Parts: sequence; C-alpha cells; structure tokens
Amino acid sequence: MPHKSLSQIWDSIADRGREILARRRVASAVHGIESLCRDLLSERGEASGTALAREIVRSYEAMDEARKEQFFQLLDTRFSPAADAILQAADSYREAPDPDTLLALSRAVEPPRQELIRRINMAPRGTAAIVAMRKDLLRLLPRHPELRAVEADFQHLLHSWFNRGFLVLERIDWHTPAATLEKLFEYEAVHEIQGWDDMRRRLAEDRRCFAFFHPALPGEPLIFVEVALLDSLATAIQPLLDVDSPPSAADRATTAVFYSINNCQDGLRGISFGYFLIKQVVTELAADHPHLKTFATLSPIRGFRAWLEALDSDLLDQDGLDTLSEPDWFRDDARADSLREPLLKLCARYLIKEKKDGEPVDPVARFHLGNGARIEQINWFADTSPKAMEQAAGMMVNYVYRLKQIEKNHEAYVSRGTVAASANVRALAK
Amino acid sequence: MPHKSLSQIWDSIADRGREILARRRVASAVHGIESLCRDLLSERGEASGTALAREIVRSYEAMDEARKEQFFQLLDTRFSPAADAILQAADSYREAPDPDTLLALSRAVEPPRQELIRRINMAPRGTAAIVAMRKDLLRLLPRHPELRAVEADFQHLLHSWFNRGFLVLERIDWHTPAATLEKLFEYEAVHEIQGWDDMRRRLAEDRRCFAFFHPALPGEPLIFVEVALLDSLATAIQPLLDVDSPPSAADRATTAVFYSINNCQDGLRGISFGYFLIKQVVTELAADHPHLKTFATLSPIRGFRAWLEALDSDLLDQDGLDTLSEPDWFRDDARADSLREPLLKLCARYLIKEKKDGEPVDPVARFHLGNGARIEQINWFADTSPKAMEQAAGMMVNYVYRLKQIEKNHEAYVSRGTVAASANVRALAK
Amino acid sequence: MPHKSLSQIWDSIADRGREILARRRVASAVHGIESLCRDLLSERGEASGTALAREIVRSYEAMDEARKEQFFQLLDTRFSPAADAILQAADSYREAPDPDTLLALSRAVEPPRQELIRRINMAPRGTAAIVAMRKDLLRLLPRHPELRAVEADFQHLLHSWFNRGFLVLERIDWHTPAATLEKLFEYEAVHEIQGWDDMRRRLAEDRRCFAFFHPALPGEPLIFVEVALLDSLATAIQPLLDVDSPPSAADRATTAVFYSINNCQDGLRGISFGYFLIKQVVTELAADHPHLKTFATLSPIRGFRAWLEALDSDLLDQDGLDTLSEPDWFRDDARADSLREPLLKLCARYLIKEKKDGEPVDPVARFHLGNGARIEQINWFADTSPKAMEQAAGMMVNYVYRLKQIEKNHEAYVSRGTVAASANVRALAK
Amino acid sequence: MPHKSLSQIWDSIADRGREILARRRVASAVHGIESLCRDLLSERGEASGTALAREIVRSYEAMDEARKEQFFQLLDTRFSPAADAILQAADSYREAPDPDTLLALSRAVEPPRQELIRRINMAPRGTAAIVAMRKDLLRLLPRHPELRAVEADFQHLLHSWFNRGFLVLERIDWHTPAATLEKLFEYEAVHEIQGWDDMRRRLAEDRRCFAFFHPALPGEPLIFVEVALLDSLATAIQPLLDVDSPPSAADRATTAVFYSINNCQDGLRGISFGYFLIKQVVTELAADHPHLKTFATLSPIRGFRAWLEALDSDLLDQDGLDTLSEPDWFRDDARADSLREPLLKLCARYLIKEKKDGEPVDPVARFHLGNGARIEQINWFADTSPKAMEQAAGMMVNYVYRLKQIEKNHEAYVSRGTVAASANVRALAK
Repeated sequence: MPHKSLSQIWDSIADRGREILARRRVASAVHGIESLCRDLLSERGEASGTALAREIVRSYEAMDEARKEQFFQLLDTRFSPAADAILQAADSYREAPDPDTLLALSRAVEPPRQELIRRINMAPRGTAAIVAMRKDLLRLLPRHPELRAVEADFQHLLHSWFNRGFLVLERIDWHTPAATLEKLFEYEAVHEIQGWDDMRRRLAEDRRCFAFFHPALPGEPLIFVEVALLDSLATAIQPLLDVDSPPSAADRATTAVFYSINNCQDGLRGISFGYFLIKQVVTELAADHPHLKTFATLSPIRGFRAWLEALDSDLLDQDGLDTLSEPDWFRDDARADSLREPLLKLCARYLIKEKKDGEPVDPVARFHLGNGARIEQINWFADTSPKAMEQAAGMMVNYVYRLKQIEKNHEAYVSRGTVAASANVRALAK
Repeated sequence: MPHKSLSQIWDSIADRGREILARRRVASAVHGIESLCRDLLSERGEASGTALAREIVRSYEAMDEARKEQFFQLLDTRFSPAADAILQAADSYREAPDPDTLLALSRAVEPPRQELIRRINMAPRGTAAIVAMRKDLLRLLPRHPELRAVEADFQHLLHSWFNRGFLVLERIDWHTPAATLEKLFEYEAVHEIQGWDDMRRRLAEDRRCFAFFHPALPGEPLIFVEVALLDSLATAIQPLLDVDSPPSAADRATTAVFYSINNCQDGLRGISFGYFLIKQVVTELAADHPHLKTFATLSPIRGFRAWLEALDSDLLDQDGLDTLSEPDWFRDDARADSLREPLLKLCARYLIKEKKDGEPVDPVARFHLGNGARIEQINWFADTSPKAMEQAAGMMVNYVYRLKQIEKNHEAYVSRGTVAASANVRALAK
Repeated sequence: MPHKSLSQIWDSIADRGREILARRRVASAVHGIESLCRDLLSERGEASGTALAREIVRSYEAMDEARKEQFFQLLDTRFSPAADAILQAADSYREAPDPDTLLALSRAVEPPRQELIRRINMAPRGTAAIVAMRKDLLRLLPRHPELRAVEADFQHLLHSWFNRGFLVLERIDWHTPAATLEKLFEYEAVHEIQGWDDMRRRLAEDRRCFAFFHPALPGEPLIFVEVALLDSLATAIQPLLDVDSPPSAADRATTAVFYSINNCQDGLRGISFGYFLIKQVVTELAADHPHLKTFATLSPIRGFRAWLEALDSDLLDQDGLDTLSEPDWFRDDARADSLREPLLKLCARYLIKEKKDGEPVDPVARFHLGNGARIEQINWFADTSPKAMEQAAGMMVNYVYRLKQIEKNHEAYVSRGTVAASANVRALAK
Repeated sequence: MPHKSLSQIWDSIADRGREILARRRVASAVHGIESLCRDLLSERGEASGTALAREIVRSYEAMDEARKEQFFQLLDTRFSPAADAILQAADSYREAPDPDTLLALSRAVEPPRQELIRRINMAPRGTAAIVAMRKDLLRLLPRHPELRAVEADFQHLLHSWFNRGFLVLERIDWHTPAATLEKLFEYEAVHEIQGWDDMRRRLAEDRRCFAFFHPALPGEPLIFVEVALLDSLATAIQPLLDVDSPPSAADRATTAVFYSINNCQDGLRGISFGYFLIKQVVTELAADHPHLKTFATLSPIRGFRAWLEALDSDLLDQDGLDTLSEPDWFRDDARADSLREPLLKLCARYLIKEKKDGEPVDPVARFHLGNGARIEQINWFADTSPKAMEQAAGMMVNYVYRLKQIEKNHEAYVSRGTVAASANVRALAK
C-alpha cells in the first residue's frame, strides 16, 4: 500500500504542530516540562496532543540525570492522586459499596500520571520513549525509593501494553536487516558475540534464533533465544560457539539446544517474556522439524562457587577449594579427575536441594524449573571460559523441556516446591 | 522472513495444549467457564495461559445471549475486588498515606477481572474476542445496569490498548485486499455503499479513503473517512456519490471534502479516534497535494427537523412546517423558494445557538466544533435522499478545518462554548 | 525498503527527459514515429533511451487502427534485415563456415526491429506495451499476412522473456487486491463470473485459485486456474458454481477438480503456460493437502455436436440428431434416457478415436492429453447451460493428472499418438 | 499472500520429478550431460523440463574445470546449427527473399543451444546457473577461442533477459538484509570495504547506496553505486572513507559525489548497466533532495602513470619521473609543490587529448564521457593510497553529470569524439 510509514506520518504531524508550539515553547522555558504535562492532560491536550507529547519526549531526552530525577519527582508530587479525594471516595464506598462508589474510588486512586503516560505514548516513537524513561527510573530507584509509586505506574502500563497477545514472534537469520542484527551484539549477555563472523555462524543453517517484537517498537527485539540443532544433547558450550565449525544439515537434527536467552529492554524489567518465548519456539521447531525429539538448554550455573565457598562439606576439603582458585587447574588431568565427582555431586545438591524461600537459590534454575523444565544432566568441563570457571568451576547444566510435562512440573514446583530432575542428577544430589 | 503468521503460531501452540486441556474440559463442563477463569488467573495460568485463554474464548463464542449475561454477571460477582480488603487498605492509607499504602489500596481496588481480561488477550485473536465481548456487554447494559462496573473495566483496558500511539493509518484504495474492502460495506452508515461499482468509484483517483488499524486486529478498520478531491467546496452529496461521474485529476484539486466518517467497532464505543483521524488525514493530504487549500466536511444535520417541530418561531408558520412533511415538496419551485430563506436561517440558529449543557444540540456539530473546525456554509438541497429530507429538509453543512486555527477554536469551544462560524452563517443565525 | 516503485521511478526519469524531447517532438510530428525508432536504435538512444522509448509507446497508444497498420508495415519495410548483407554473409559462411562467419550471418539475419523492441521495453510499463502491440498485430495478421515476419519477431522475444523461469506462481484469494480480482472477471471465459458474490464463492475455503505473474506485469495474471476441493470426482459443473452452496472444509478433501483454466493475455498467444501451471498447482496442492489423492479436470467438449452433425452413425439416427436441437429435450426423461447411451459412446469415440494429423480433433483433449493426463470419465448432464447443450449435448469430461504417469502418457501421446483413457471410456469408444 | 517462495516451489516440483529421473540418471552416467540436453530439447523436455533442467544444472555444478570445457565444447559441436540446412535456407532466400524464406533462414541460423539455454533457465535458480556458466566460459575463452560462438549465444540471451526494463532499482542501507550487504564486501573493487564498521559508515545518513536487481536473482546486486551527500565537491577520497567521521545531515547537502561504482556479476560482463544506474540515481536523488545542485564523481585515473612513463614531455624531466617512484615523495612539501603543476597539466592532457581510435585512452574517462558527463576538476593528493599513488600519482578527477547536458555531451562525444571539460581543465590541457 503506497502510504508513509508511521514514523514519517508522526513526524509530519508534529512538524505541522510547530507553529502551534512556538509560543508554548517560550512558556516551557519558564514553567518547564510541568506545564507541558498539565497541558497534555487538559482539554488542550485533546487538540494538540501529538505535538505536546512530542515536546515532552524531546525535553526529557535533552535532560541530564539531575533533571530526570526532578522530572520523576514531579510525577510523584504533582501527578499523584489527591489524598482528600481518595479518603472521601473511600468513605462513600464504605457507606454504600456499589458499582458507582467503587468506580469513583477506583478513579480517585488512579494517579493522574497514568493518563499522562498514556498520552505521552501518542508522541512519535512514544512507546520507546516511555520504555527509556522506565529504564532511567529503575536506575534511580535505589537512591530514590520514594519514586516507587511512580515506577509502579510505569510498570503497570507497560505490563498491560506488552501483553503476550500483542507480541510477534519472528525468526532472525542472515536475511534479517543489519540494523536489527546489530542490536543482538548489544543485548547478548550470556555468550558475547565476537563480531560479524560469530554472528553469521550463530545464524547458519544448523542454528535458529527467534525474538519477540512489539508493533510499536519496530526492529527492536524484546527478548531472543539462540538455538543449536544437533544430533545429541550438547555437553559443552565452546564447540557450539566455534566460528569455524562447519554447519551441519538441520533437517536430520534430533536435539534443539537453547544455549542463550537474553532480555533486551532494561525498561521492561519485571515484565516476563521468557517462558512464552521458550514454549512458542519449542512448538515452532517441533512443527517444522519432525525429527526433533529433545528440547533442552545448555545453561550456566551462576552462583555455584560462591555458594561453595560458604559451605562446609565433607565432599571437598580446603585443598580442593583452593585448587579451584588456581588458574588452569583444569588442565592438570590428575587434579581435575579427583575433583570431578565431588564437584558434580555438590553441584547437583546446589541445584536441587539448596533453597531459599522454598525455591532453588540458583536464579537460572528458578527460571527454567518455574517454566516446567527439569534438570537433566550436569556437564563437566562444559565451559572453560574464565567467567564460567569462576562461577561454576566450568560446569553447565541441561534443563529439558517436554511439552507434555511442562504443566505438571510447573504446578508441582509452584505449589510444593518440587524440583524436577533426572534420576542421574537426583542420584548425584543424594 | 520465512516464518508463520501469528495466528498460525497461536493455533499451533493451542493445538499442542489440547492434551493438557483434555481433562480440564471435563471439569469445565461441570464448573463451567468460571473454573477456566480461575485457572487462568492462578499460577496454573502461567504455564498454559494461551491454551486456557483460547478455551475461554471458544466457550464464550458458543454461548447464547442468556449464557453471556451469566458470564458477565460472573465477572461482576466473582471477579470484583473484595470490599473488606478495600476498606482495610483505605484505613491503612488514611493512617499513613505513603507510596506503599497507596499502592496497596490501588491493588485492592483493581478488580481481578482486569487481569483476567488481560490474560484472555493471550488467546489467538484474543483482542478481537475482547472487543466482541464489550460489544455484547454494551448491548446488555441497558437491561443490566448492575454490569456497569464490569463495562468500565473493559473500557478502561481497551482505552489503554487502543491508544493513538498504537494505531496505524493506512490508505484504502482499489489495491486493498477485497476482504478489507468488504468490511467497508458493513461499516459505512452515513452514505451506504451500493455495491462494488459504487465502492470502486469511491476509491477512484479523485477520491481518498483512510482508516486506522490496530496491529492486533489485522485487516479490520477501526474508523475510516472518505474524501473527495475537488476544485471547489462541495455543496451537495448526490454528485459526489454518482457512480457514473468521470473521475477528475487529483493533482490539481484545491479542496478536500470529507463526506463520510464511520466508526467501525461497536465494541470500541466511547474510545474516540475521529479527531486523530481527521487531523492526520488533513496533514497527509496537505503534504501529498500542495494545491489543496481547503479541508472541509459535507455533513448531515441530523436533528434539525425534530428540533424545528418543537419550535415556535416567527420565521416559519404551521403551513410551512406542514409543507416539509409532504413528499416531494422540494420539486415545487415556488414553495421551495419561499422556504429557502427561513429554513437556512433556522438551521444556522439550530447549529450555532441551540445548546444544551453549553454545547450545540446537534451531535455532528459537537464533534466537529469540538475538534476545532468551524461552520462554513449551509447548503440548500444538498441531500435530497428521503433520510436527509426527513432529518434536515435536505440541507447539509460544511465544517472547515484550518490547521492553524484548530487549537484556538477547540480551546474557545471547550472553555467558553464559543462556536466558530463564518460571517455568512453568523449573519443567518441572527 | 523506503524507495519508490519502479513505475514511479520510470515516470520520473521520463519526466526529466521531457526537455530533451521537446525539440524532438517537433521532428516527430514531421517524420513521425519512424524517426523516434531510428533515434532509439542509434547511439542517441543510449543517452535518452528511456525517454525515447516512452515517446514511442505514447505515440503508439494514441494511434488508431490505420496508423497501427502503418506502424507495423514500417517495422516490416524499414526495420528488416538487408537482403544484400544477408546474402553476402551467407556467401562468406559458405566459403569458410566457422564461428565468425556464422556469427556474422546470424547478425545479418536478425531483423533490427528485434533490438528496437528490446529498447522499447525500457519505457515505463514497456513490457505491457509490447504485449499490447502484439495483441494488435495478431488481430491485423489475417488481413496483413505480409506482417508475419514482424509477428515472428514479437513472438520470439516474448517467448524468451516469458520463460517459465521468470514466472511467479501466486495464490489468488479473498485477500488479493480488488484490482487484481477485477481482472478475473474480464479473463474468465470458460464459466463467466457472475458478480462479486460469485467471485467470493470461487475463492472460499474449499476453492483454490492460482495464477502465473511476470515481474514486469505486476498485478496482471498471465493464466489462472480455478480448483474445487471435493470429496469425490465432480460430475457436473452447476453444483460447483452454485453461489449459495455452503463451503466445506478443505482439509479433508480427497479430490481437486480443475474446473476452469484461462489464458489472460491475447498478446502472449502461442506462448504456453498451461502445462506448467497445472503441473505446479498439482504439486503445490499435494504438498499442502496430504489427503488429496485425485487431481482431475471437469472440462467442456467443445466440438462434439458439430462433429456429430457431420457424422453418419448407426448409433444415432436423424431423429435422435433432431432431438438435440430441440430446446429442453433433456427435461424429457424418456427421450433423454434413450439418448444417453448412444451419446456417451459417440462422445468417447469423438474424444479418443477421431483424429486429425494424428491428434484428437477436440482442442481441449489435445491440450490435456498432450500434458500427460488421461481421459477418465464422460459425464451425462454435466453442464445444462445453453452453450454446453449446444456444443456437447450437456456432457463434460474429466481428465485425470497422475504425477507418476504424466511423462509416460505425454511421450506415448507425442511419439505414437496414443490417447490415455480409463477402461470405462475405452469400452464406450469401442 | 500465503504461498511458497518460488525457490521452494521449484524445489518441490523438482523433488516430484525424482522418480521420473531415477532411470534417466543411469543413462546420464553413461551418455552424460549430452543426453540430458538432448532430452530437454526434445518433446520429452516439455513434460519434465523443470526436472531435466535441474539435473543439468546439478551436473554442471559438480563438474571440474576440464569437464566444463568439455561441456562447452559439446555445446559448440553438437548444438550448433547444421551448415547444410543454413546453406540450403540461404539459397531459398536468395531465390525468393520473402518473410517465409527469411524466417526459415533465421531459424536455420539460430543455434539449438539458444533454446537449450532458455530451457535450462526453467531449473530452480536457473538464471543464476546460466550467469555462472557464462562466467566460467569467459574465463575459458582466451584458451579456447573456438568457443566464441557459444559465448555469443550466452551473451545474446543474457542481454535480452537483463534488459533495463526488467531491472529494479533498490536503495541499500543499514536496514538491508545482512546477506545482501555481505555481497557488497565481495563486489566492491574500487575502494575495498574494511569490515562492518566501514560498511555501516558507507550506509550512514549522509551516504546513499543504490543497486540494480533482477527479479530472477533475488538479493543479488548486478551493479551498485556509493554516493556521499556533501556540501561541496569532494576533492579527496580518504575523508569520505573515514570510518570515524561524524555523519552530517543529508537534507542540506548540495553535492552528491558518486565515489564508487561496481559491476557485480562477472557472468554479465559486456551487458552494461552503469549508465542507466547513474542516470536513474541522479534522478532519484534530485527528486528526494531539492537542495542537491551538483552530481559528480570522484574517480580514479588508472592509466596515467603508465602513460606518463612512455611519454617524452618538456613538462616533466627524468628527475621528476624518478621522484614519482620513490615512496612517500608526496610527504616532502617542496618536491610535491614542484611537481604539482606539471602533473596536473599532464593529467589534463592525458584525460582530454590522449586518444586511441578517437576515444580517450583512460577507461574510466571513456565510461563517464560516453555517458554524457564532463571533466570538471583534477584533484591533487586526492588519494594517497599506494594503489592510487602508483596509478595516478595520487590524483583523482571529478566528472560532473548535468541532466540537461547529458544528451548533448553524449552525442558530441559519440559523433565527433568531443571531450566535454570545464574551462579550468581545458586550460590545464593546453
């Protein structure tokens, strides 16, 4: 259809609004962004909402850290609900709890800044701007806990807007625009992409990459997963990442290994996409590749050694512990052999038994077990990168997803804290 | 990109969920949709939310009117917030009004059905299902005023989801898929489309048609406007709708006449797109056609004769009034001439001076004046269709949109009830 | 990619060439299109070929029939190869037949108008213009047999350009742009489409429509086939074309019936696409619908009654023949019953045994048998439309395509004139 | 439209043809590719042409250099026209030169391999295979001059198929698929792309890149041009290629500098796209950027120093010549200054006056002058890369394209050998 892109249209609308805004800008220099926000919430906002919203976004983007703090404090102090009105509405509800008093209370309680944020969303690329605002806000929050109500409003809206029903799954491959691929460099945090050759290998015919996109953030992945199609369960990461390994034929692969999952948008923290992505990608791959029988991860075990340090175990003496801190201990076959069994056992125990508030202490384990996966296998010398040696003495773990057991595992985990694990790993953990 | 469409993917996900749901379906036959809804809101909903949501949508779609009523009553009685919790949270807030007590109150007040609706949105075509639910609910509301809180929740969510920032403007022309064009037949209510020849004429090179779409409702227009590109202001509708009129060259047109604007989705009633559409289409046309100088409507005057009947005016005696009820009076030149001036005057008065709650009584006038347009010209014998003769004695009115005055007009209208009108029309109204 | 469409670009190039062409146009009024053609073939043509080609196309399009004749005669007389040069090149080749003398002869023989047509193709929509020229030329040919060499050059080029390797198969359905669907009305000649309701029924979920397109003729089908997905072999056409018949589920269909195949472009006559289309559509459908077992046509028998009239057969006396000319004879059960067997037998004989130059006299039979299909079944009262009663006494025939036998049938047909037919039909023909 | 890609379709067609081909393959092992070719040309080829063509392509692709030679020799010896038939047809034409004898001669002269190549084009990716064959053939030609008639047939067909009217101009930018961008690395031969950072800089907002594509070679550029949008004429290449230079705003640029033009397909050598590309890109840029006033190249001067070595000129003594061979002479200001004027003069003379067969000896000059450009300015120290120092003592030249003068310049150049040059350069050349 021969029409302009949304952003071009938005640009032109906003351009037209320039004259309207010329005199407003002067005012804005005086009263600042607050008056723009008040205007946007007023009836005036109905007539020139797009232009006002754009102005607010531009002003925000030009702010330094201190000004941003002030902006969020403004949202907290000036765009909060009125306590009087809330209490009065609460009284009315107490007297006569019916749909009308409930609605009135509900309206009294909703902070005006929620509607303000909704209207800012009308700006060109407004959704991206709001996600960026929340990213800033989350960074400021530790120092400004008073902003937690403001943050809650951002989260509430983004949770509603980034509903699974609005997300689009897309495959990413070598035919994807370079501008999108480039973002993977930035967002890949599990196993960093080492340049375009590495990128290309990860998108070769025996690899798959899928991402969720939102229509209001074109070309901007929200989360992506990298998958290797193999003929057996991967037990080490380096072979998967070997840029020079020849791609194999995907159509005979029996095993899909999810070796990296990355959330991309700091501004969407706490709005979870991972479970939906994994489940949908499993479904997709199963439909396209009837030979695939096993869907598993190859996952890091981030907190193992930190936990180990604090542990007093018969299985590993101080000598053993000290060894782990030596560089290249794993190249010494004898020492490595002697450590192998105790470490595998301890790791199994760490993953399965070590809990806090009823859940495993390991964050990656919590994610996959909560999704309904089970612990399948712990792999010795699976990642000999310095980071993995430091975190997990080089071990990695496979979590397996079986569509038929996902729900049962999930329920058992959620309701009773049951950790699903293979017989082997359970034996190790004893 | 060689991947499946979203709906195919959703279908396949939900297909996979069948086994999971087999036993649930039995339960559903017993406890019905309520237990599905409870499951969807529970932790279980996290594991098989898509499948559960689909099940709820399917159950709903199979319901007759009586069952639908019960469903909405269920949402009212079982998925409302707990009064106790609200009052307790209100007390806490009263004692210590801080971010935490506010958030707690806010959560207590939000009806669980809001999150339920959000999760139903995860179903394949879930957004369309929710819009359809609200359509049903609005139809039931007059007989079931107790459901107004439920309705308010639907509206609240749809208002947030159908934010202007998420809408996409698309031009509709003869290259648009037939499946989308077909919907215009259904949705065009101002000047009905009389078959495909009429459709084609309305999409010819001297016509424009634009619609807003939402990414979650592909191919489904939310609102559309039909525009004629002319070399002078249109003073009558029949020539515009003449299927046999030869299309003229668009590139020299000086005047864009918006002759029909239609909201398409009953389920989105009260969520207004009209203003944004007009403003954006004006902007678009101005950019593409530098010769265009005037942007105006040719609009019906729906309530004029009903108002006139109840009026006691010197300008028109009972005889005159009676004439208007005769068929074909307008074909009698003498009588028509004698009525012309008094009716134009009365019509100007009706549009400009006749107000209720500070706003014009005519709904179309309220819409365009509220958007910042001004009344330009009242046209005699502008629409001689039976409906228009019945409603407005055949008169129509042009509202003109001038980008530079839109905001000023809007503000004057909103704050002081000022009706913008040309000198001519104002003179008539005196 | 945000770039202009090819036709927009071509337009703008040609617009830029206007100045260049201003003075040329004067000349063109004098020497006419010939000088434009000479210029286009000269070095000057390299610098402003697009503009010149466009000018030629425009001039041509403005011509009446007489001028078009002159134009083609011009191509014949002024853009033919030089006899002298040909004979001289032939002599050189005779003396020393080597690559160089062959190439020289080849160049001497190729008419300059071939390169001229290639350069006209550079005009905006040049390919469409050339196809239109050939359409005109074919219409003129019977009265102007001297133009057959010119026509041969057009055919030669179009045969090369519309190579199967450049064609794109596309499915046509209700989501196809209306502008393309509209063309089907024009091109459907087997069973005329009776309006948009009929169109929609033919594109419903138990129907398929596929067309070949060429990239240089966007939105313009070259040939299309309409297919019904059924659960048994169709024996009559009217039920298939019933607008009010409820669509059935396509996914359980066992039989695909090709009930209409239409060539769309008169200007491409003699360049055959039908075989490729059928074979590819069979392949496509087989891949998408694993339940499909039978691929067959329901085809007219165009020349049967004309052949019958001239026949002296024991099977049908003059009385029987006369009956066929009476209106509505088929509504008289007794007469119809008495004619049934003799007509089926005669029809089988007509299709299988009646040959001319070693091929069946029926053109539709020649097409499908030549493609490797076999005659499966002759259907009594299969098409009671006046045309079909007139041509074939209401009978139709199924040709069946079996992928595994296509080649064998084709070879037997081509080399030995063998007509593949089912045992039943062969028995009838005895 | 939900249909398969052309290549998927082709694949599936060909897959279906496997059985058909099973027994043929045995034969092919015996009689080799020749019998496949004969089959493809025969009637059998009509029934299973796609499968046969694919088989030929596969066989070819598996061949080593020696086998390829044999294949082309086969085309030469077995698929050439019959000398007897040619001579006989020539005699008939001599006796009665009319359309029929001409057509008969024309058919006798056309080598059967032309139709064979057309049919090979029906294979999946057949066009790419034919382009690859010609690439091989051109490489073999110097050693096998007897294949020049075969080569002429390939060229003839590709010239016809890659007609300007079938090419599509596309802009290449950072949103282009990585798979296409990757090809630019391979094809950029003027100023090599130094990695993805360099690529990205060349596609930044003050750069443009356009390419021609053919619909049968998706994602495969035929020729591309790189353009810098600047505010003055570029006089040196290194600043343009500086990866770290900040992009400037394109919308105020006054000058478009075409700094690299590359043909991509060796197999299309001699089929020229360059002129069309430049002219169309100039037109495109002019339409999109009304501020652009100057369209110019920054071009290498490849043969200058080789020419200079052989020259005996007063302007430069042997000492001067020797200096040019020293490394880094240009870093010595004094020596450089002394050489500047004589070299600029000699270079002007080289470009303007030094001719062979009536055309400038410099190949780049011939290309741009033949396109209608004029020599604008010779730039001292414009490219200090070793290659450019070696070829042109670091000088580069701007050719300017003015739409209004292109045709005039082209004609003067072609008909009278006139070299268009600015007054400055002409003065230097005196």
